[in-house]
Amino acid sequence: MITAIGFDADDTLWHNETIFEEYHGRFQALLARYHDPKTVERALYATEMRNLDLFGYGVKSFALSSIETAIELTGGAIPSDELRALVQMAKDMLAHPVELLDGATETVAALAADYRLIVITKGDLRHQERKFQRSGLALLVPHCDVVSEKDDATYARVLRRHGIAPEEFLMVGNSMRSDILPVLALGGHAAHIPYPLIWAHEECSAPSDCPRFHTLANLRELPVLLARHRQPGC
Amino acid sequence: MITAIGFDADDTLWHNETIFEEYHGRFQALLARYHDPKTVERALYATEMRNLDLFGYGVKSFALSSIETAIELTGGAIPSDELRALVQMAKDMLAHPVELLDGATETVAALAADYRLIVITKGDLRHQERKFQRSGLALLVPHCDVVSEKDDATYARVLRRHGIAPEEFLMVGNSMRSDILPVLALGGHAAHIPYPLIWAHEECSAPSDCPRFHTLANLRELPVLLARHRQPGC
Repeated sequence: MITAIGFDADDTLWHNETIFEEYHGRFQALLARYHDPKTVERALYATEMRNLDLFGYGVKSFALSSIETAIELTGGAIPSDELRALVQMAKDMLAHPVELLDGATETVAALAADYRLIVITKGDLRHQERKFQRSGLALLVPHCDVVSEKDDATYARVLRRHGIAPEEFLMVGNSMRSDILPVLALGGHAAHIPYPLIWAHEECSAPSDCPRFHTLANLRELPVLLARHRQPGC
Repeated sequence: MITAIGFDADDTLWHNETIFEEYHGRFQALLARYHDPKTVERALYATEMRNLDLFGYGVKSFALSSIETAIELTGGAIPSDELRALVQMAKDMLAHPVELLDGATETVAALAADYRLIVITKGDLRHQERKFQRSGLALLVPHCDVVSEKDDATYARVLRRHGIAPEEFLMVGNSMRSDILPVLALGGHAAHIPYPLIWAHEECSAPSDCPRFHTLANLRELPVLLARHRQPGC
């Protein structure tokens, strides 16, 4: 019996990777005089992975890694004036309006009466909290837990704190690695809703055979899945 | 009757501002060819305040603001190669060993049996969590809440989540603005332990006359204060 639902936020409730992709494009354009886009992209990703443990996720980490990459890829030749654009880029990303995915508000509103709802998101603390407030979903979802990593230990801690048993919990998200696999590992349920774009770091294959794993085309299919789950014998 | 104690972390349990001061010095040295230390310091602080709402607290915000200030103060003339030092500075600060204040472990250990303990700290999520783990205090304190701002609303939310009434809660910290005043405003108790250095943003005067406010010289005085508070008629 599912009584509580966790929602990932970026690319599950609101658009995120589309914004990052736009800024990746701007970063490639900034370095176009020095290197082709593929080289720039590969170097940036390598820097991000090298810095991930220390920096964590989010826009400020991305900005610092992009500055480091720009200096590195140009052997220090890029004028510092051009690096100013990268700081501005971080500000623009942090101030970017929240654009909800189709059906997000309706789906959350439809489930709010019957389930305990939590947003569980990783990234920059203040940025995620601000997006949650601006999304309007804070009126429907009582908790937004911003975590620094989405692994088994984190989900176990979040569920313990809310007094939710894993077997009564369903996590909804676009990342197999961060939203699905750790929750299944704990004995919980998970609904994967792929987003058209995914950051290479989050790429991961689906679990092979697990009755607690579901794939949905979009958020609007979630109430149907849950209604089916409430039927006797399911 | 006090049953729960909140500890600020930076400059209350472990040293922080001393590390920032060292990096402020390095920043001034980097720009010494262009401006005197006071001008550099003033410009950096102005940038930090301008960016605070968007960036929030912590090392990565400091790093981005220092990069922005360096470009601004030199009219873009600083070679990008020198800005590399500022990215490295952020990494060094994030990787800096945790240095506990005198008496931190003993005091926390002495109180762990009789009180519910929580670390409540603001700043970068991953950095604060890592410092908490590395401090060894995670063995004694069951919760570390990293928050994006320490105001009345935040403390009210944290206390509600832990099921603690403000009148049974004592907050311990070095910042009048972030650790003391908001908790007193909620009806809680607060013990101020000044640290030799304080970031200008945290400067604030003491409450004029409040029986729930206490000033201590160091952490070792905390158990004494609490023992006195447990005496009948107090």
